[in-house]
Amino acid sequence: MALTLSSQSKHFGGTLSKYTHASTSTKTTMAFNVFVPEGASAQNKVPVLYCLGGLTATEDNFAQKSGFGARASQYGIALVFPDTSPRDVGFPEAGEIADIGYSAGFYLNATKAPWDKNWKMYDYISKELPEVIAANLPIGGHGALTIFLKNQSAYKSVSAFAPILHPTASSWGMYAFPRYLGMDQYTWKQYDTVELIKRLAAEKNLRSDVEFLIDQGTGDQFLNPDRLHTSVLAETIKSLGIDNQFNIRYHDGYDHGYFFISTFINDHIDHHAKAHGLSLKH
Amino acid sequence: MALTLSSQSKHFGGTLSKYTHASTSTKTTMAFNVFVPEGASAQNKVPVLYCLGGLTATEDNFAQKSGFGARASQYGIALVFPDTSPRDVGFPEAGEIADIGYSAGFYLNATKAPWDKNWKMYDYISKELPEVIAANLPIGGHGALTIFLKNQSAYKSVSAFAPILHPTASSWGMYAFPRYLGMDQYTWKQYDTVELIKRLAAEKNLRSDVEFLIDQGTGDQFLNPDRLHTSVLAETIKSLGIDNQFNIRYHDGYDHGYFFISTFINDHIDHHAKAHGLSLKH
Repeated sequence: MALTLSSQSKHFGGTLSKYTHASTSTKTTMAFNVFVPEGASAQNKVPVLYCLGGLTATEDNFAQKSGFGARASQYGIALVFPDTSPRDVGFPEAGEIADIGYSAGFYLNATKAPWDKNWKMYDYISKELPEVIAANLPIGGHGALTIFLKNQSAYKSVSAFAPILHPTASSWGMYAFPRYLGMDQYTWKQYDTVELIKRLAAEKNLRSDVEFLIDQGTGDQFLNPDRLHTSVLAETIKSLGIDNQFNIRYHDGYDHGYFFISTFINDHIDHHAKAHGLSLKH
Repeated sequence: MALTLSSQSKHFGGTLSKYTHASTSTKTTMAFNVFVPEGASAQNKVPVLYCLGGLTATEDNFAQKSGFGARASQYGIALVFPDTSPRDVGFPEAGEIADIGYSAGFYLNATKAPWDKNWKMYDYISKELPEVIAANLPIGGHGALTIFLKNQSAYKSVSAFAPILHPTASSWGMYAFPRYLGMDQYTWKQYDTVELIKRLAAEKNLRSDVEFLIDQGTGDQFLNPDRLHTSVLAETIKSLGIDNQFNIRYHDGYDHGYFFISTFINDHIDHHAKAHGLSLKH
């Protein structure tokens, strides 16, 4: 559980630190960035928001380009920015294409070789990393929609920017899932937001006290042709009668990149702060 | 003067666009990013702020990581983020070390081979780029302190983050200037803020209606050993009796990076907006 500090910068009164650590989940050295606001201490622990990057991202993208700092500082919220996959695993397939391997962890536990040894990102994000954080930093515990849905009692709030909502029907998932997980489509559905919501709703196991905030740009290159399937989620929740729990916002003309994220980051931090009963301190 | 659009993203209601163009100053293809706020048009031109990156930067660093968007949108200000040097000039020295060549344009007009052919960044920033912008975009005219000082009537306001204030006495300038400019130290002083201020003050040619805002982190790795020479500027302006025109702010613990910049970016945009008589629109 030992952390190695590799860089640290003061930011909006707090600190943005990059740590590395030996991960028991991935059997690799994993890196993450963490923002700890001013005043956080062992005696004054602060809420923490997990910010999970998408395909092609590392632990740096969201930390450096989202513009989270002002609002996080105003509320006194910590943010954790994990890497999106294991690195330096020593087999060439991991670096060959963007849809699988490095930066394409899909936050799943792979079950097929060669991925099954290191691609245990679900365990890493949902179990190991929160333990590492809690043991080392003065913060107590979003995640991807799937991780939230499978661990509804572990998180207070959830939101997403331009998420892949139905990967089992997307060319991304149809490429990656057979390779990571084999051909068992039941397993695929464990990492598919639309499928998880359908199952949880059928089981009456979907928390009713949580609002899902989802922001989506209409200029997003992945909205049409439909790789994100925002409309499928919308139809699903309407047919289930739970659309009142979802705030799906379409933003005219915004694309899939960080200039979209940074435009609306304050709204997301406000959303999570409200779930924690926090108000602006300055 | 034709611009080629290479990317465009909506950002805080406006657009962040990257353009390339054939530069007559550098004889290369130059790239820049430009933020144009919502509502700007040929009939409604908006003020423009030039944001010049430092060593190691490209046209992307400030645009992607500073968090300028919210405030720039609130005031309705355009921002231009130029590249810091010519690229792809075809001789190996340009890419060999960080202190000279690519990303190390120093905003000077080089006079020594091989640099004198393309490293005409002073002309590019102070003359060509504003003409290109004015001819193509609905915005009318910071720059580096030296460019401001040599073109005081061309700009309304100036500010800097952690600038190299006295490069002729810094190991950076002592390495780059002989190579770019030869051994004539008079020429060197044309690109040195402390030396320019001394000369302009002696000639009574320093504008008195401008406040220089300079932010400097005390945790900056380049403050000690002294490569930035903030203290030399402070002593110079005090001895000249013009320290009331300079707002040099030291920020405890902040370093030289983008987490420092983004913490204080709003103050800089406020500073320039005030010089333009602008108020927050939303």
